[in-house]
Amino acid sequence: MQAERPGLGDEIVRRIDALAAISETPDHLTRVFLSKEHRAAAELLVGWMQQAGMLVRIDAIGNVCGRYEGLEPGAPCLMLGSHYDTVRDAGKWDGPLGVITAIACIGGLHRRGIRLPFAIEIVAFADEEGTRFASTLLGSRAVAGTFVDGALTGRDRDGITMRDAMVAFGLDPDRIGSAARRPDELLAYLELHIEQGPVLEAEALPVGVVTVIAGATRLAVTLRGIAGHAGTVPMAMRRDALTGAAECVVAVERLCRGDGGGLVGTVGIINAAPGAGNVIPGLVSFTVDIRAPTDAHRKAAVAGITAEIERIAKARGLDLTIDLTHENRTAPCAMWLQEQIADAISAEGYRVLALPSGAGHDGMAMIDIADIAMLFVRCRDGISHNPAEHVEPADVEAGARVLLRVIENFKPKA
Amino acid sequence: MQAERPGLGDEIVRRIDALAAISETPDHLTRVFLSKEHRAAAELLVGWMQQAGMLVRIDAIGNVCGRYEGLEPGAPCLMLGSHYDTVRDAGKWDGPLGVITAIACIGGLHRRGIRLPFAIEIVAFADEEGTRFASTLLGSRAVAGTFVDGALTGRDRDGITMRDAMVAFGLDPDRIGSAARRPDELLAYLELHIEQGPVLEAEALPVGVVTVIAGATRLAVTLRGIAGHAGTVPMAMRRDALTGAAECVVAVERLCRGDGGGLVGTVGIINAAPGAGNVIPGLVSFTVDIRAPTDAHRKAAVAGITAEIERIAKARGLDLTIDLTHENRTAPCAMWLQEQIADAISAEGYRVLALPSGAGHDGMAMIDIADIAMLFVRCRDGISHNPAEHVEPADVEAGARVLLRVIENFKPKA
Repeated sequence: MQAERPGLGDEIVRRIDALAAISETPDHLTRVFLSKEHRAAAELLVGWMQQAGMLVRIDAIGNVCGRYEGLEPGAPCLMLGSHYDTVRDAGKWDGPLGVITAIACIGGLHRRGIRLPFAIEIVAFADEEGTRFASTLLGSRAVAGTFVDGALTGRDRDGITMRDAMVAFGLDPDRIGSAARRPDELLAYLELHIEQGPVLEAEALPVGVVTVIAGATRLAVTLRGIAGHAGTVPMAMRRDALTGAAECVVAVERLCRGDGGGLVGTVGIINAAPGAGNVIPGLVSFTVDIRAPTDAHRKAAVAGITAEIERIAKARGLDLTIDLTHENRTAPCAMWLQEQIADAISAEGYRVLALPSGAGHDGMAMIDIADIAMLFVRCRDGISHNPAEHVEPADVEAGARVLLRVIENFKPKA
Repeated sequence: MQAERPGLGDEIVRRIDALAAISETPDHLTRVFLSKEHRAAAELLVGWMQQAGMLVRIDAIGNVCGRYEGLEPGAPCLMLGSHYDTVRDAGKWDGPLGVITAIACIGGLHRRGIRLPFAIEIVAFADEEGTRFASTLLGSRAVAGTFVDGALTGRDRDGITMRDAMVAFGLDPDRIGSAARRPDELLAYLELHIEQGPVLEAEALPVGVVTVIAGATRLAVTLRGIAGHAGTVPMAMRRDALTGAAECVVAVERLCRGDGGGLVGTVGIINAAPGAGNVIPGLVSFTVDIRAPTDAHRKAAVAGITAEIERIAKARGLDLTIDLTHENRTAPCAMWLQEQIADAISAEGYRVLALPSGAGHDGMAMIDIADIAMLFVRCRDGISHNPAEHVEPADVEAGARVLLRVIENFKPKA
């Protein structure tokens, strides 16, 4: 069976490098929505999709969309996708690996003259990271028909609105709606992506099947006490905002560690004012990022963490404000798709590990029009959003083999 | 008895305001070493000291030194002092209250034609805060003969060396040694200063006698873990530098609160990198400021806190560095002087409260050539180094009455 499938890994790695060369700055990989690098990358993808025997177009938001017809023209499609924008100073695998592996799989079918009982489409999403306009999932939201027009007034760091940037790119901001697809056009949405975490590496597995894309809640917490001289205010008379915040940080960790059900909580930003070594901090702000495998689980955790922070603030006589700054619902992967991915992983000789995705992905938008699924590929040290992001060629190959097997054996939902 | 002493408070408050008008910026009080404001303030002080019947000179470091002879010319002196430089955006009481109250007391003696069996000198120190060159106690160190010439190469934020600034001011940096006084010229060094803390206010007392100027140790702590994605790294696989630092901050507070013997510990600065809401911090640095009534007590506390931070870092697999960035030994106030101050406080009708000074003062330098003592005056809410610093006129008057009584009844050490 494997003899029929020539190794796809080398070609994928070469294309990853070719795409990574298209960057705003030569020393750091940065490729953002509606930039000239977006244009250049799109043209490269168009060419690769055409070589793979696909009919290709760029849609109204700048996504590159390729279609590989099935045995019957016009049939509903299995949609494969990922994104080709990056964060600033990015790694080269996050997004492109899913797009390029999908193209390689279709190219393999095309070279072998294989048509399946369903169409296959690939969508390379133009914006998932939200690097330029601070709104994420712009490409997949357009395809899902959930693009919010208010995003068009968002500005980049140079003050350019998304609307103006679209016009400059040659797109019509009033026609974004035409990028939307109907649910009956899709059999499923399937994405291969690097894990961006350390679990597969720890389990010594090249691939894993995703159970759910965890929702996320972000809180902004401010504690206000009284600043004072580090030498003159006795411990018992202090209202130190930083010791209060530190107790909160430890509590977030303790509550999440004690959960055991996949809950994670992170304080990533902390600022203490006035910020002098000999002054008791009077004002401290920090963020809390909370994710869990289900919305109910996450909401219960947010309530528990909020209550604990309130208790700490009250006990210390600190004034507290907690603002909800960000919330994404959980996107579960369809069980019938998970089973097909698990079968393919097994057939390739790997133990099946099912794991949640703590990071957000385009599936969070696509779930509005299709059942979704994800295949994770191991990355080194769990590092992502960083130039040190790395995937071993053997794991690229393993991911491609599993994805191709999923495609070839795909059975639409009964 | 009180009828003999006209109220000094009004004159002191007027002069505090006059001196506060000499500032680098009109809206915020800032008066730093070797500036034109230093010059203008020195000239004002010279005039006030002369009106008080003193012989006045500006010494080799820019201190204003006045001498009020005793019954026998050339006798050793009781030295009164404080500083007339400020931090940036300062209050107007920190330093000047001690200088101006001392001048008012001598002026009172002079008006009444009183000479004592010993001389009285006032030194208004030109630099205590170290605002300009980041070296503190420059004025009192010069008088104590412990000025370190290396300080002359220090630069201000405009790149000007202390040596060049001295020359521009009209002082000879090679003659700083001539400011030094011999121990046999001094009977004692006595300073009145605002408390800069909340203890007198909490005790409802206008004045208190200081037991000791607490030594201070400053540590710079760095914890290095592994940065990671807030969504993708399970709690059990994290090496979060910030949760480790938070545990350290809580531990510093717990160890100091549990001490009960005057130990205070403060984390005033904390920085977490990379500093994004969805990234686990991989690198955190923070300061620890530790002060206690005795050197042995402080050193034991530093050892205990260091051991606890080491334990936390080890348990969490974090790389740790701890640097000692600053250390001042404890300067105890002489018991024989504390007793004379306590007697004066009692005689003025106040309960005697003895308290340590957690803040540093010129006595830390002067202790090398004389026994030292301090009289604290209550300030509002314990606030200092802040424009909101405030002393009630009645407390200014109380401080002046006690200081005058100490001077009039002063008995040199047997």
